[in-house]
Amino acid sequence: MKENKIVSNYLVTGGAGFIGSAIANKLIKQNHQVYIIDNLRTGYKANISKNSIFIEGDFSKDETIFKLNNIKFDAIFHIGGQSSGEISYEDPEYDLNTNTLSTLKLLQYAVKTGCKRFIYASTMSVYGEEKEKEQFKEKDDVNPKSFYAVGKLASEQYMEIFSKQFGIDYVSLRYFNVYGPGQNLENFKQGMVSIYLKQFLDDSFDKVVVKGDLNRFRDLIYIDDVADITIESSKNNKFTNMIINIGTGKKTTVNEILTLIRKLTNSKKEVIIADGTPGDQFGIFADNRLLLSIYNKPLTDFNVGLKKMIEWINEK
Amino acid sequence: MKENKIVSNYLVTGGAGFIGSAIANKLIKQNHQVYIIDNLRTGYKANISKNSIFIEGDFSKDETIFKLNNIKFDAIFHIGGQSSGEISYEDPEYDLNTNTLSTLKLLQYAVKTGCKRFIYASTMSVYGEEKEKEQFKEKDDVNPKSFYAVGKLASEQYMEIFSKQFGIDYVSLRYFNVYGPGQNLENFKQGMVSIYLKQFLDDSFDKVVVKGDLNRFRDLIYIDDVADITIESSKNNKFTNMIINIGTGKKTTVNEILTLIRKLTNSKKEVIIADGTPGDQFGIFADNRLLLSIYNKPLTDFNVGLKKMIEWINEK
Repeated sequence: MKENKIVSNYLVTGGAGFIGSAIANKLIKQNHQVYIIDNLRTGYKANISKNSIFIEGDFSKDETIFKLNNIKFDAIFHIGGQSSGEISYEDPEYDLNTNTLSTLKLLQYAVKTGCKRFIYASTMSVYGEEKEKEQFKEKDDVNPKSFYAVGKLASEQYMEIFSKQFGIDYVSLRYFNVYGPGQNLENFKQGMVSIYLKQFLDDSFDKVVVKGDLNRFRDLIYIDDVADITIESSKNNKFTNMIINIGTGKKTTVNEILTLIRKLTNSKKEVIIADGTPGDQFGIFADNRLLLSIYNKPLTDFNVGLKKMIEWINEK
Repeated sequence: MKENKIVSNYLVTGGAGFIGSAIANKLIKQNHQVYIIDNLRTGYKANISKNSIFIEGDFSKDETIFKLNNIKFDAIFHIGGQSSGEISYEDPEYDLNTNTLSTLKLLQYAVKTGCKRFIYASTMSVYGEEKEKEQFKEKDDVNPKSFYAVGKLASEQYMEIFSKQFGIDYVSLRYFNVYGPGQNLENFKQGMVSIYLKQFLDDSFDKVVVKGDLNRFRDLIYIDDVADITIESSKNNKFTNMIINIGTGKKTTVNEILTLIRKLTNSKKEVIIADGTPGDQFGIFADNRLLLSIYNKPLTDFNVGLKKMIEWINEK
């Protein structure tokens, strides 16, 4: 058996980011040829494997897509883009370009080059937050409340059209709250787990500030699981033309996160409860029965994932 | 009473087009100062009143919006844009720019300049076509099936965000099938009434070709009513932050349209029934109870509106 035989060609957008790099690096380990497009606006060059082909630029621009040279990919993983509802208020046009126009351009590239599979990083944010409703299934009404959510939802609708009209199979993965090694610890606007961990573990913080209610919760899914599911979805026909919640189906409260971090790190730091961020979600979690019906590997428990993330931070 | 006192400043996008020019010209007759932006891609310079201020260009481009010189409008009527589901397949990116990016830019202009009211030409196309469902109310599920519909729906969601976050009141008018004097008779891809009338009345056609089933139907609403409702919606608070079907609530079949044209024109032309256009809708019509509850003027009967349209064609 040849060790270095290349199995497939894949494109991963956002391959310098948290989720995109986890997917790209797993694909590379499986001996696939991976092309990465990233503008390094929030991603890091250090995340990009030397065994990939890296194109620096906006995947919403023709000049960048032109550099792909009409290569036919076995699948396109469109993972990149501005990834926060809150931050989407700062520059809604950038959000529309990076999250929606990009999808259109990449789907058109797929048609032109004969690529038949398109995997998209969608989001739980499309559900919005409804009073007294916490758990959402894929068939539930959508209610996008940020520019980010509007753009992701439009991308899902574009994929549906390309599937029906041009035969491009899609998978739309509505990621819930992804955490784990590789997450950006310097971003205090996104990632509850990373924000708290940074404050607990970095000596330059003498206390931990939590903005908002301790009963808020998240559906926290481990990065390795997300990367595994995403890659599986590119090969497994049960995922074909599906919109799927990617969550654990479990609520983890802020209080539980803080308690577990304290236990695992033996930290004695004082925790200050401050006012919440305007518009911050109280919490929603996934009805993930559809995922569990087509994906058999067990999902990582939060205490296991959190421990691995702490080890990663301590090794940095 | 001064005859020429200017009452308000309004912006009408697409003011050289069928619906936009009808709105602009009514506003001008009411002594308002009207600014028009149009790229003349489908609109005509002849439609633009000399009493308006005309800016030629794409309203999805900063350079065009810059020419508005930060004027504060009493309301922005965003009527322009690519207006056909079928044609949106030819250039989906143009569709996204002209129908969605433009909305974002104009809403941002409204915030910047203190304009508090934004009227948007949305579409019945957001409902899609469901098997065995013909009539739609505003609360029904949306199911956009063309790039056009995706982009219009995203614009509605943007307006909702701008209303909540920045206090811009909006009205989203989901126009059904608008017909009447001023409609482009040379466009054979859009407008059932105009397509049939052109063939009946133009001597260069020796017969009338109808593509598809005679039982297909449309909810046909007269241009004058649409312009009146649209202008009313900019002043009447009952329309504030509402999504409203703009239709008659009546089905008119292809057969009824043909029969009435034949009667009104005394035409003896042969009608040929050909295969339908792929993707053409069988028909949907409006549940317009919301409109009727806030708008009191009676809507024009189809036989009255069609007669006026024929007179207009014969006078051309």
